[in-house]
Amino acid sequence: MNDSALLTDLYELTMLQAYFDEDMHDTAVFELFVRVLPSRRRFLMLSGIEQVLDYLENLHFTAGELDWLHGTGRFRPAFLDSLRAFRFRGDVHAMREGTVFFGNEPVLRIEAPIGEAQFVESRLINLVNFCSLIATKAARCVLAAPDSLLVDFGLRRAHAGEAGLLAARACYLAGFAGSATVLAGQRFGIPVFGTMAHSYIEAHDLESEAFERFSSSQPDNVTLLIDTYDTEAAAAKVVALAPALKARGVNLASVRLDSGDLAEHARKVRALLDAGGLPDVRIFASGNLDEHRIAVLRAAGAPIDGFGIGTQLTTSADAPALDSAYKLQAYAGRARRKRSEGKESWPGAKQVWRSVDAEGRPQRDLIALADEPAPPGGFPLLQPVMRGGRRLAPPEPLAGLRAHAAAELARLPAPLREPGPAAEAPPYPVEVSDGLRTLARELDARPY
Amino acid sequence: MNDSALLTDLYELTMLQAYFDEDMHDTAVFELFVRVLPSRRRFLMLSGIEQVLDYLENLHFTAGELDWLHGTGRFRPAFLDSLRAFRFRGDVHAMREGTVFFGNEPVLRIEAPIGEAQFVESRLINLVNFCSLIATKAARCVLAAPDSLLVDFGLRRAHAGEAGLLAARACYLAGFAGSATVLAGQRFGIPVFGTMAHSYIEAHDLESEAFERFSSSQPDNVTLLIDTYDTEAAAAKVVALAPALKARGVNLASVRLDSGDLAEHARKVRALLDAGGLPDVRIFASGNLDEHRIAVLRAAGAPIDGFGIGTQLTTSADAPALDSAYKLQAYAGRARRKRSEGKESWPGAKQVWRSVDAEGRPQRDLIALADEPAPPGGFPLLQPVMRGGRRLAPPEPLAGLRAHAAAELARLPAPLREPGPAAEAPPYPVEVSDGLRTLARELDARPY
Repeated sequence: MNDSALLTDLYELTMLQAYFDEDMHDTAVFELFVRVLPSRRRFLMLSGIEQVLDYLENLHFTAGELDWLHGTGRFRPAFLDSLRAFRFRGDVHAMREGTVFFGNEPVLRIEAPIGEAQFVESRLINLVNFCSLIATKAARCVLAAPDSLLVDFGLRRAHAGEAGLLAARACYLAGFAGSATVLAGQRFGIPVFGTMAHSYIEAHDLESEAFERFSSSQPDNVTLLIDTYDTEAAAAKVVALAPALKARGVNLASVRLDSGDLAEHARKVRALLDAGGLPDVRIFASGNLDEHRIAVLRAAGAPIDGFGIGTQLTTSADAPALDSAYKLQAYAGRARRKRSEGKESWPGAKQVWRSVDAEGRPQRDLIALADEPAPPGGFPLLQPVMRGGRRLAPPEPLAGLRAHAAAELARLPAPLREPGPAAEAPPYPVEVSDGLRTLARELDARPY
Repeated sequence: MNDSALLTDLYELTMLQAYFDEDMHDTAVFELFVRVLPSRRRFLMLSGIEQVLDYLENLHFTAGELDWLHGTGRFRPAFLDSLRAFRFRGDVHAMREGTVFFGNEPVLRIEAPIGEAQFVESRLINLVNFCSLIATKAARCVLAAPDSLLVDFGLRRAHAGEAGLLAARACYLAGFAGSATVLAGQRFGIPVFGTMAHSYIEAHDLESEAFERFSSSQPDNVTLLIDTYDTEAAAAKVVALAPALKARGVNLASVRLDSGDLAEHARKVRALLDAGGLPDVRIFASGNLDEHRIAVLRAAGAPIDGFGIGTQLTTSADAPALDSAYKLQAYAGRARRKRSEGKESWPGAKQVWRSVDAEGRPQRDLIALADEPAPPGGFPLLQPVMRGGRRLAPPEPLAGLRAHAAAELARLPAPLREPGPAAEAPPYPVEVSDGLRTLARELDARPY
């Protein structure tokens, strides 16, 4: 379903028919970018490019889809016949996933016959917008708790199934230890984490019986949920049970808090565990967490070793969308520019150059025309990844992308590392080349 | 992918293994509800029940999934063998989709052997949470503009693919005229709408040439996008072209505004179209709209006939998650209750009774135990929909659910119809039965 060619906006098809009628098949250059960062974001982290390349490589209409389109009466048979052979055969440049990026910087550049390049707009935005939203939110959590175990718990509140799955990938890319989502383990090789539900405790008449039975069933790496009734009373039960569990070979790894004042409970539970001879049992916390709450817990010295983060993370609740756009920048060798009020775009095929200092820390970016010379000391963020509709290399292992994301965060300029609103920090400098400004002025003088 | 049995949280599987080890297979009652409404919502509208029933009817593990689980080393072979025959064979009660509901009211009640009832938690919340979020947001738009053409334009900013598709369904259910998402037309029979992109205009050297070519390609029902360069200048071009288009049999239905001050542009464009002999050409607007902006445009008398609503709608941006929960309420004939701080749930299998006045307008709801007698004048919102894992009736056509949603909105009490924060209106009365309160007190006195 997620990769059906019909998962698109109707206008992509009607425009495709118009291009067919007009015999317009020259090469178009489209670029995907975010116009302006959300007010609560100081940087964005790219994700979703592998999903985009998968989509582009596999895009086609099935016979059933073409039959259905025929039945709508909206399209002429000759056009629908042409869709039997419709494939994406264009070239793609992209930033590497895990790269930090900023407003107006193209993260993806598509060059293909205009129909193909246009048609993929809806799904490309749909993927990159969401995956980058979540990678960014996850990166902010990683910056808030760089040495904690962070786990994505957000499948249930993610916006339906594909979001839950891709959120797990984006979080792992950004530096999370893993996800509770099992399918993310199967599809992406992401480490999968899990504890137990309150219902399991409640289904047993006694909490300690539930602890004992669960530990016996999963002895290798046990996390016990201790907030169903009374958190500290449950911690005391864990202490009392520990010798018997140890004797049976159970590895009691941690306890989980999921409600109440997490800092206060963590301190009390830590004291109970330590006094009970369980200094190695870790405390894992969950419950309406985000980067801000985690920062507060850590600033308060709460003895919490890991965090399960759900709703706020997988919905990017404080910034649930990016101002993402996919715009025509050139057609048939001529640069093009959208000039709608407040939505003007920079014309032409472009490159983004990043200049770094001696330690590799980004100093400034330059958005320039792709054929302008490299600025001194800058390196280009957009790299060729697909030619003629085929990937130039096999998909990069997630581990490599994750290492790249970690390096990006390690080099992130200090003001961008803080979780506050963008307006409260000096913005990262993103410059526009003289060549690009000149071209834009020239286009604005053209008749339309 | 969206319906893989592995699209779940790891703990669902580890608990299932524990229940298997403990030979715990008695009947459990779980209920899905929203604890507290978001601060910006005065009611919620239910959606996603058909997707839940599809999931329950088709749930199974494939051989490949079981092999993968085996390879993780987390599960014992006897347990994995038992999963070959794993199916959902329980009973389900649900509110009808399109029904308005409130905090703590179960919208779905599952009764099944505890493993089956527990396992489905993650996906059931994932579906009902999202679909109800969007149906609610769409219903608010419908209340803001009851006589306007409302179209879902939000696929690209929805959180990945399934969200885009299910959002289209939820919007149509709630009263939208349709969606731009083509797949929603194929899968759900939802009317599909579309216009043209700025890129199409820009790919032509002259805007009027683009208008003419597009109209020739799609003559039956043309909407021209007029904000690419200068909105009023484009409207004047439309007027100039209109006689030639009419002579060629083109039905010029509307023009679309997508940027700038929509009210001001709409007034100027309306005047140009009227003066140019095109009083029947409608004005359609889009661009960062939601129920609040639409209300402002309508209050200002902006001559806009229809709205394309995207990002704010399909991300439910001002309330991107519900405080949804799926809780064990009874096991093996005994009521159960989660007592975690701030997250206490009402125990036992329940029913929600709605009392209405002579015009059918809801007056109050009563949450009661399922075996308590009906309150005078109340009718039960939870109805049986599945028995032994099979639907009791074929899926209800979306048209019927849509009519039900429309009736729900027509009867909605006046304070709930306004888009302001919940705190600024008297809350809708939701009462808890004496029987339920007594049971909760009894459970709280039990040892744990």
